[in-house]
Amino acid sequence: MPSHRKALAVVLLSGGLDSATAAACAKRDGFDVLALTVVYGQRHARELTSARAVARALGAREHKVVEAPLDRFGGSALTDPRIKVPRGRNTSSMSRSIPATYVPARNTVFLALAAAYAEARGARAIYIGANAIDYSGYPDCRPEFLRAFERALARGTKTGVEGRPIRIKAPLLRKDKASIVRLAARLKVPIQRTWSCYLGGRVACGTCDSCLLRLKGFREAGKTDPVVYAARPLRRRKR
Amino acid sequence: MPSHRKALAVVLLSGGLDSATAAACAKRDGFDVLALTVVYGQRHARELTSARAVARALGAREHKVVEAPLDRFGGSALTDPRIKVPRGRNTSSMSRSIPATYVPARNTVFLALAAAYAEARGARAIYIGANAIDYSGYPDCRPEFLRAFERALARGTKTGVEGRPIRIKAPLLRKDKASIVRLAARLKVPIQRTWSCYLGGRVACGTCDSCLLRLKGFREAGKTDPVVYAARPLRRRKR
Repeated sequence: MPSHRKALAVVLLSGGLDSATAAACAKRDGFDVLALTVVYGQRHARELTSARAVARALGAREHKVVEAPLDRFGGSALTDPRIKVPRGRNTSSMSRSIPATYVPARNTVFLALAAAYAEARGARAIYIGANAIDYSGYPDCRPEFLRAFERALARGTKTGVEGRPIRIKAPLLRKDKASIVRLAARLKVPIQRTWSCYLGGRVACGTCDSCLLRLKGFREAGKTDPVVYAARPLRRRKR
Repeated sequence: MPSHRKALAVVLLSGGLDSATAAACAKRDGFDVLALTVVYGQRHARELTSARAVARALGAREHKVVEAPLDRFGGSALTDPRIKVPRGRNTSSMSRSIPATYVPARNTVFLALAAAYAEARGARAIYIGANAIDYSGYPDCRPEFLRAFERALARGTKTGVEGRPIRIKAPLLRKDKASIVRLAARLKVPIQRTWSCYLGGRVACGTCDSCLLRLKGFREAGKTDPVVYAARPLRRRKR
């Protein structure tokens, strides 16, 4: 019966741990999930396989995969093979400058597409797994950007001017990776299906920024990452 | 010599009269033009042919055509064949409600892609032919939206946080169609190459909202539209 239908939320689902956890948060908050994966010319399609598996496992009502060819514009290590993906950096230094893996205006484009989907389907919210703690180097993961974008949507969409603005929810915004790992476990996120590695191998590389951060999160949360890694960074052991 | 290069501006170029005039304004303002046409699943490709011809005629430094499949989300007469394009309405009543030709979050998506292009290429401004007078029914053509989006970009892009925010310029925002026609003529816009009709025939239909508005503009400006129409609306003649 339509009147008993749950409210809808569009969830930006990359296939990584964070966006999968954001999707689980949308479900926890009482929404039916419209999953949206944006293929933006990232170097590998491995994430897409994960996004599909995660959407299925979480019972998304729909999963749309759309293309937005940001690689046509260039300017990032994630879309331009001529720019090297940084590897083996110290995770504590990651936030000091905007990294080479920053994709110009990526979250702006993702949120714009999510807004188009949300408005066309009458969804009330957009969930995004943006995180301002571990990746404060990305300007489009900061709360001030997300708030400003939400205000733009309130002014530039039909639902906004009619008084039903689309809300942007970033439930992981102020969580460190260990808290995200714990939340994912509590909300029964299919962690083994997620993919965080910036490279697209058969197994995760274990040495790019994203792998390092993820492994650190699991370590600090006292949990084991079910994903298989080609290499795990050395760490001090008690003897 | 690179140091004598002009500053760059991304211009959203649909192929219509307004965006062609916006491109001519960017040139007048001293910018080199990076033209961007977004193919978003509109019903016809006729606009694309016009966009290519206009970019060439105006001497754009580059012209990128990218896809953003807004038709996958639905909700507009311009992308969904099941929704009828309104025809033969009274142009003075157009602004009273949001028309069926509104595409959810279209300008949000366009500006987001323009921002990605601008940031990747170091462009300082985005020009958009948005107009708040004749189409005040479109929420994403209003000045309050464009200002809010500009603020979001200042907070969510690398150039923004580094103190060189991308500016959004909408030189036609408060002009009526007759003033746009006069400006286009003055700036030597290749008017005969532009395409405004919502339908994709060999010649413009002359009866959709967009054709009616364009023809009214030429009439009020005292100029003849060089574009060929299948039909022109009846008007009172002096005998």
